[in-house]
Amino acid sequence: MTALKNDTFLRALLRQPTEYTPIWVMRQAGRYLPEYCATRARAGSFLNLCKTPSLATEVTLQPLARYNLDAAILFSDILTIPDAMGLGLYFAEGEGPKFERPLREEWAIRNLQAPDPHDHLRYVIDAVAEIHRALDNSVPLIGFAGSPFTLACYMVEGSGSDTYKEAKTLMYSRPDLMHHILDVTTKAVTDYLNAQIEAGAQVVMVYDSWGGMLSQAAYLEFSLPYMARIMEGLTREYSGRVVPRIIFTKGGGLWLEQMAQCGTDAIGLDWNIEIGDARRRVSDKVALQGNMDPSVLFAPPAAVAAEARRILASYGKGSGHIFNLGHGISQFTPPDHMQVLVDTVREDSRQYHV
Amino acid sequence: MTALKNDTFLRALLRQPTEYTPIWVMRQAGRYLPEYCATRARAGSFLNLCKTPSLATEVTLQPLARYNLDAAILFSDILTIPDAMGLGLYFAEGEGPKFERPLREEWAIRNLQAPDPHDHLRYVIDAVAEIHRALDNSVPLIGFAGSPFTLACYMVEGSGSDTYKEAKTLMYSRPDLMHHILDVTTKAVTDYLNAQIEAGAQVVMVYDSWGGMLSQAAYLEFSLPYMARIMEGLTREYSGRVVPRIIFTKGGGLWLEQMAQCGTDAIGLDWNIEIGDARRRVSDKVALQGNMDPSVLFAPPAAVAAEARRILASYGKGSGHIFNLGHGISQFTPPDHMQVLVDTVREDSRQYHV
Repeated sequence: MTALKNDTFLRALLRQPTEYTPIWVMRQAGRYLPEYCATRARAGSFLNLCKTPSLATEVTLQPLARYNLDAAILFSDILTIPDAMGLGLYFAEGEGPKFERPLREEWAIRNLQAPDPHDHLRYVIDAVAEIHRALDNSVPLIGFAGSPFTLACYMVEGSGSDTYKEAKTLMYSRPDLMHHILDVTTKAVTDYLNAQIEAGAQVVMVYDSWGGMLSQAAYLEFSLPYMARIMEGLTREYSGRVVPRIIFTKGGGLWLEQMAQCGTDAIGLDWNIEIGDARRRVSDKVALQGNMDPSVLFAPPAAVAAEARRILASYGKGSGHIFNLGHGISQFTPPDHMQVLVDTVREDSRQYHV
Repeated sequence: MTALKNDTFLRALLRQPTEYTPIWVMRQAGRYLPEYCATRARAGSFLNLCKTPSLATEVTLQPLARYNLDAAILFSDILTIPDAMGLGLYFAEGEGPKFERPLREEWAIRNLQAPDPHDHLRYVIDAVAEIHRALDNSVPLIGFAGSPFTLACYMVEGSGSDTYKEAKTLMYSRPDLMHHILDVTTKAVTDYLNAQIEAGAQVVMVYDSWGGMLSQAAYLEFSLPYMARIMEGLTREYSGRVVPRIIFTKGGGLWLEQMAQCGTDAIGLDWNIEIGDARRRVSDKVALQGNMDPSVLFAPPAAVAAEARRILASYGKGSGHIFNLGHGISQFTPPDHMQVLVDTVREDSRQYHV
């Protein structure tokens, strides 16, 4: 094990004492940064940026050069797995991700195979390794994947959706087929995250972006159990260090108690829930990551700082809080507002760690 | 007071004993019904349908002719109030509602006036009166309005949105201006609902479609207090009968305890929350309306009936449950699946009311 210069994030995830509340921000390498837009323009497309390790490394490091962040996160997309499964990921201009071959037929579902991460997903594993080297043990690197439910949803739907009509129709009409997709995808995600860990990811996060579209009964049948199986299958220690896990179900605030039992070290929170209430509900059994509304960053610096302080105070004293937004940072965020957020959290949080 | 032939819905809202669990469905007069599509085609446009009392009456009654429903709901739109305030409501084909003049400038916000419901909203009040007469005391008529926060959001944004960037920017940057819009809108909604009550609405419902986009702190500052003020200002008894109230914050499952204190008789639930848990959390202090995922109606009849039974069982014995979907019925719903739902609820629920 090589010592990290800043392991505050790792300690907070394991609820060990820290000097301040660590912060990173979902989609911190993104379109709100002019340097990101420049690299993306050079890459030609978002997918090419994801698929070229040197460029993925470049954009991963950009926010760390600007801001005093406590973690880096692999620049990639949750849909790399379905792409590797042969669904044909593409990005229609201004329309978000789509698949050329959505999963609609029973034969196609039965034929689904978990990809070998060292084969079709080699570009991601290479990016993790290159980013890890480039970080030079400054801060931990987060690897990630989509949750089985979220991936299944996209695969069946073939694109984003407001209602997930196709995915929900399959789920309620043919739960056996939905469970089959989830089985295969769970194996794929587990192998993929373990390969990221071997390549240098020191934390792994599972994004359940669409689990919050479910009823509680459906969430407890189709989303959470598969994340629990991933937790069981993940490498717990690598290179002499525990590899902490984070799960994030957007819209999952009602189900924190159940999520806290699934084998994760931390739960990502969207901004709907008051973080102090969330902490009481999970009885400090897991760390909590979140949870400022990304829209607060549109407001003037004084309002940004005030909201950051309010959230820090709501969590209160002691370790186990990782500051973040409740969702990805908006492309319309002024970069200097992000600066105010990062600096406020770093300084104001010290009072809660004495 | 003229006796209603079927007052099951009113009794359930006031948590009085009933013989079965009443059911109605949000957007029950809608595009999934061919007879609705025919009337809408005759009307020429959605807005014209809303603005012509005889046509609004026609479509309001259509689902009652098909299904054994326990309530009718005024056919209208939540954006009639901002339209009457002069913002210029229009529907761009396939794009949803928009305003010609969104509320963005301080002078425009300061000039905002609550409309007299008997003036610019006369067509709605006339529709309520006509529907009330046409119903002939068969089932109660629900009147409705958007919540102040939801209306303010639309007015500032000028259209629907995924992020409500403009509305949230105003809210976090100039909370004083947002509160001013909410003040005026609260008066408008109160006057509007009271006029609907006088015209024959026997229940009123406030749709807080966008409150669930807020943090808890913002919800408790910008949405719920204004709904509480409406509750205070509403006519409590009319024509010798209590007029029950329902509030519905889509995505508000975390805040039920606070909502139950606002003066409402019932809370509408989306499908995220398990209704039995919701009942325990509000300690039977209010009735609960909901909460099947509308997507279940895409599944075969047996799955529809099973999910309806599961929800009835989750609520359990006793009064205070009004069955509904957790959101409006989808235009893609097969009408015979709706039939299965209504009949299953009517018959299967009797066991919980003995």
